[in-house]
Amino acid sequence: MSSTHRHTPGCACGIDVHAHVIPHDLPRYLGNAVPAAWPSMAPAHACHRHVMIAGKVYRTVSERAWSPSRRIEDMAPMGLAVQAISPMPELLSYWMEPQAASQLLRYMNEQIAEMAALSGGRLVGMGAVPLQDVDVALAELEYVNDKLGFKAIEVGSNVNGKPVGAPEFAPFFAACAEKNVAVFVHALKPTGVERLVGPEKLLPALAYPTDVGLAAASVLTSNLIGRHPDLKMAFSHGGGTLLSLLPRLEQARQVFPALRDAMPVSPSEQARKLFYDTLVFDAPTLRHLADRFGASQLMIGTDYPFAFHDARPVDSVIAAIDDPRVRAQLVTDNAARFLGIDAGASPIQA
Amino acid sequence: MSSTHRHTPGCACGIDVHAHVIPHDLPRYLGNAVPAAWPSMAPAHACHRHVMIAGKVYRTVSERAWSPSRRIEDMAPMGLAVQAISPMPELLSYWMEPQAASQLLRYMNEQIAEMAALSGGRLVGMGAVPLQDVDVALAELEYVNDKLGFKAIEVGSNVNGKPVGAPEFAPFFAACAEKNVAVFVHALKPTGVERLVGPEKLLPALAYPTDVGLAAASVLTSNLIGRHPDLKMAFSHGGGTLLSLLPRLEQARQVFPALRDAMPVSPSEQARKLFYDTLVFDAPTLRHLADRFGASQLMIGTDYPFAFHDARPVDSVIAAIDDPRVRAQLVTDNAARFLGIDAGASPIQA
Repeated sequence: MSSTHRHTPGCACGIDVHAHVIPHDLPRYLGNAVPAAWPSMAPAHACHRHVMIAGKVYRTVSERAWSPSRRIEDMAPMGLAVQAISPMPELLSYWMEPQAASQLLRYMNEQIAEMAALSGGRLVGMGAVPLQDVDVALAELEYVNDKLGFKAIEVGSNVNGKPVGAPEFAPFFAACAEKNVAVFVHALKPTGVERLVGPEKLLPALAYPTDVGLAAASVLTSNLIGRHPDLKMAFSHGGGTLLSLLPRLEQARQVFPALRDAMPVSPSEQARKLFYDTLVFDAPTLRHLADRFGASQLMIGTDYPFAFHDARPVDSVIAAIDDPRVRAQLVTDNAARFLGIDAGASPIQA
Repeated sequence: MSSTHRHTPGCACGIDVHAHVIPHDLPRYLGNAVPAAWPSMAPAHACHRHVMIAGKVYRTVSERAWSPSRRIEDMAPMGLAVQAISPMPELLSYWMEPQAASQLLRYMNEQIAEMAALSGGRLVGMGAVPLQDVDVALAELEYVNDKLGFKAIEVGSNVNGKPVGAPEFAPFFAACAEKNVAVFVHALKPTGVERLVGPEKLLPALAYPTDVGLAAASVLTSNLIGRHPDLKMAFSHGGGTLLSLLPRLEQARQVFPALRDAMPVSPSEQARKLFYDTLVFDAPTLRHLADRFGASQLMIGTDYPFAFHDARPVDSVIAAIDDPRVRAQLVTDNAARFLGIDAGASPIQA
């Protein structure tokens, strides 16, 4: 498609790869001893529900979290044609027994599929798998891909402390590459929390990008993309701190032979094969990301429907990027490629 | 001084704020039960010594680590007129009993003072204090400032896991501000090590900048500079990941009232009052640092004499910055201001 003329303020041609779902209800645990972290939903004020975890309100969310029509209504003013919807990361349940997590994630995947089915192509499902057990995760990958038709999944930046680049997850990502299922890596239960001084909201503000940056670095240092060049893997929050880490990692590889052995291809070159969302809230940083990682690798991410989201994601791209062709890449084309959307057949052209 | 014409390749007018010392010998512990982490020096191959910690070789270093003349010889090709010398961070000894750490750090401070005294003004002492006990640290601060004449000290990015912005260290930094002693914050025993996948050299490559970035953020979120606007505080490795964290922290402050309360002044504005070294190994990143933090806040840092250092620090500035006045700021003037060096009276003019 020719899209250079469409990326003006007010267009609704964007594809958002970073948006979350919380269902109106969560299932009861089908077993005896309910896991301590098993979540549930409870009534709140009008159009709102509490997510309850371990007997406490984890977050209060509005109907935007579960209603496809409410969400689609919001997409036009955000400049979005399509949104990929994934579970709120706290629901990924890596910390439960695999069979318990499977039960919850199967429900989430079905809910997401239903929202997508009701959306007329505006919402695209991004599934979840219990990656704490690679065999169970592989089975769920097959289900969401073959049965639900999802072309992407969301994973945490770490699984119970192990970053995505850890060797035990390699067989799972090999299967994603083989099935051409894209992987969106989102910050989760981050490291560095003991280094924060101040209110608890510093956790998403500072520790999330820290964990994502180290997760992305772990993919480079483990040569995952070198072994699976066709794997499509994206990182939330602009790759977090990777932008700051990369030149020093590059230099360390020049100095230390062990790092050259670990990374046959330079980390800078590898980093240009990963994808990143645009959720950095800053035009110079977004330009720096495009320069460093490549204009072909950035895609809109909003973190909708949470408070800490980018309500004008297309404008954020326009503020950073002058070239209309590059804008089109960031707003639409890269995400279409990542998500396997046939842009010509989608409502993007509408 | 007028310095615009001096910053051409080959000048030797730079001031390096980030260089380390390891003495030829370390003292025996003057007490009964030697602390497990008490370091010692052991012979190695010609002109080299092993730093031994807990019975193992921690690092093997050359005479560059202790010899003022060898160091001064190396400074000319590096473009350096002056180097501030501080202990190798692993010697900061925060993990020992305060009295044991005091003994080691007093020895280090005396050694550094002696190296500076032998250098004809080319080496400037940067002291160390046992910050695990603020009262003992205050006493040593007084000693290094009043008795040894040091105008700067080095501290770790965290003290036994507590970042420099933690409230317990505020009285110490208040005293630094009052005495006009500059503080250089260096990465130490970093967070996030469990997120690394690969050789151990990933620790300095990735975890150091991560810890420094979170340490700098802790200074912003605790409003330390707001309370002590005259405090001169610098961060190693270009502030680590702070560059990536700052825009998201800024946006979080817009969204969450608790963060506005914690930070009466925006973190971006506060960040322009901190200092940072240039040790980022990348011209676009250095330009981005200058834009974001201000050209008045960056100073040469090399990490001499370790393998992973910048051997051409003036060239690194020249590669990133075109404006000769800005080059002069980064190469000479900012560090002179930070270290309290009277540039007109120093060998910089030679």
